[in-house]
Amino acid sequence: MAKKPDLDDYRVPYFDSKKPKAFDLASIDSASKPFSLGSKDEDRARLSELNAALDTLQDKLHTQRKQRVLLILQGMDTSGKDGTIRGIFQDVDPLGLRIVPFKAPSEVEAAHDFLWRVHSQAPAAGELTVFNRSQYEDVLVPRVLKQIDKAECERRYAHIRNFEALLADNGTTIVKCLLHISKDEQKARLQARIDNPEKHWRFDPADLEARKQWDDYQQAYADALGATSTEFAPWFVIPADSKTHRNVMVAELITRTLQDLKLEYPPAKESLKGIKVE
Amino acid sequence: MAKKPDLDDYRVPYFDSKKPKAFDLASIDSASKPFSLGSKDEDRARLSELNAALDTLQDKLHTQRKQRVLLILQGMDTSGKDGTIRGIFQDVDPLGLRIVPFKAPSEVEAAHDFLWRVHSQAPAAGELTVFNRSQYEDVLVPRVLKQIDKAECERRYAHIRNFEALLADNGTTIVKCLLHISKDEQKARLQARIDNPEKHWRFDPADLEARKQWDDYQQAYADALGATSTEFAPWFVIPADSKTHRNVMVAELITRTLQDLKLEYPPAKESLKGIKVE
Repeated sequence: MAKKPDLDDYRVPYFDSKKPKAFDLASIDSASKPFSLGSKDEDRARLSELNAALDTLQDKLHTQRKQRVLLILQGMDTSGKDGTIRGIFQDVDPLGLRIVPFKAPSEVEAAHDFLWRVHSQAPAAGELTVFNRSQYEDVLVPRVLKQIDKAECERRYAHIRNFEALLADNGTTIVKCLLHISKDEQKARLQARIDNPEKHWRFDPADLEARKQWDDYQQAYADALGATSTEFAPWFVIPADSKTHRNVMVAELITRTLQDLKLEYPPAKESLKGIKVE
Repeated sequence: MAKKPDLDDYRVPYFDSKKPKAFDLASIDSASKPFSLGSKDEDRARLSELNAALDTLQDKLHTQRKQRVLLILQGMDTSGKDGTIRGIFQDVDPLGLRIVPFKAPSEVEAAHDFLWRVHSQAPAAGELTVFNRSQYEDVLVPRVLKQIDKAECERRYAHIRNFEALLADNGTTIVKCLLHISKDEQKARLQARIDNPEKHWRFDPADLEARKQWDDYQQAYADALGATSTEFAPWFVIPADSKTHRNVMVAELITRTLQDLKLEYPPAKESLKGIKVE
């Protein structure tokens, strides 16, 4: 009998300042489906269960207004960040869910430190916030484009660790996911966008330029993950060539994260007993 | 045969500076259900249809990233602002939907003009933004509490009209809904929160204080609606004693609003023809 998969097997080992090392991304097969139950139908049924569970958990989080949860999604173009958000949060009440997309920095944003715009979007008490791209873009893109050197990159990793420690210290639970796809899978997805005129709006010629630097980006991810996976803000690598598997696995992860918070609805108040509204 | 209801029958007449007047709120029966199809089951089925239609419409809005839509929800405590958001947007992709709750102003917010915090939350291109309470709190609460006089209130109405004209001029479609409930219906809903210990967290003793000034609030709403319903930012009064009816009617309204924008997915690009991804 196959060993039951464990989410923690996909967690990047915690950064250790005494022996920092890149994470071996190739050690995880992007085509594998460890959290699949077998058929697509079974996986979709499981996803429906998780959607419903997340609805209740997030309702408690939002009602309680004490804790904060931050989910960070990163991945190469076409890796499915948008699709994941839609797939796992479709039953969640929009009242307490906030999606924050980070694009290329604006002029004003670029005139500040790289965490300035990110900090302003940190989750408030009771919020479940999703970063669609994040502060990690700033240790990936400029590094691959050789706009920053290794020393600056290391300084940024440290700033990110400190920043995430601050959020965690303030009661924010942070989970970071790399949606891990293969170069071939990206090729198929980009080609599908080109071949289907209705999907042309999703295609950005700049994606082809980034694709030429695939290996550099993989290395940049490997370094960043190794340098910033911590007990208070762990990275998980999600095999994401299968969209259904990707959604199930991220949903399992965020559900477990919320369950671990032991959320309860606020208690009844004795003081309200017997009050009659006039 | 009953006349088919028309959403525009529930629109507050546009402000006319030559003959400004309060809207007669009592002219609309909060217990009526003009957009009900008959049974609750039929209404729920209609709501499901509207949920699905809104999903597609908002997807086009978000994909196109040109137009902006702002839905403002106002109403007395327990009138169902939260429930409406959940009820009508449950199928909409969270990617392009943003819910902004406005509470009592913080110290920093109160240190600016009353539109400062509101302006910063205006919808971006492609966004459907919902204000859960809004700038209108500042012509309701301080007026009833006699913190501002009539002249200041009139100045604020004018500032709101000008502000909404600015947003509209920038391609924002604005729809404003007053969720209209009766004093008796509020009594029943508040009592239900008190009588059910699991709902105690939803009960705020301050709601009983505001309830004592019910008539003053109704008058403040009547004045504000009359002074700020415009062609570019109309007010609609939603009979909301029935939660199902309220949801159906607001969903009909926002669906029609989006349909009127004639949204289409972005067109195919000739330049992509024949490109092969390497």
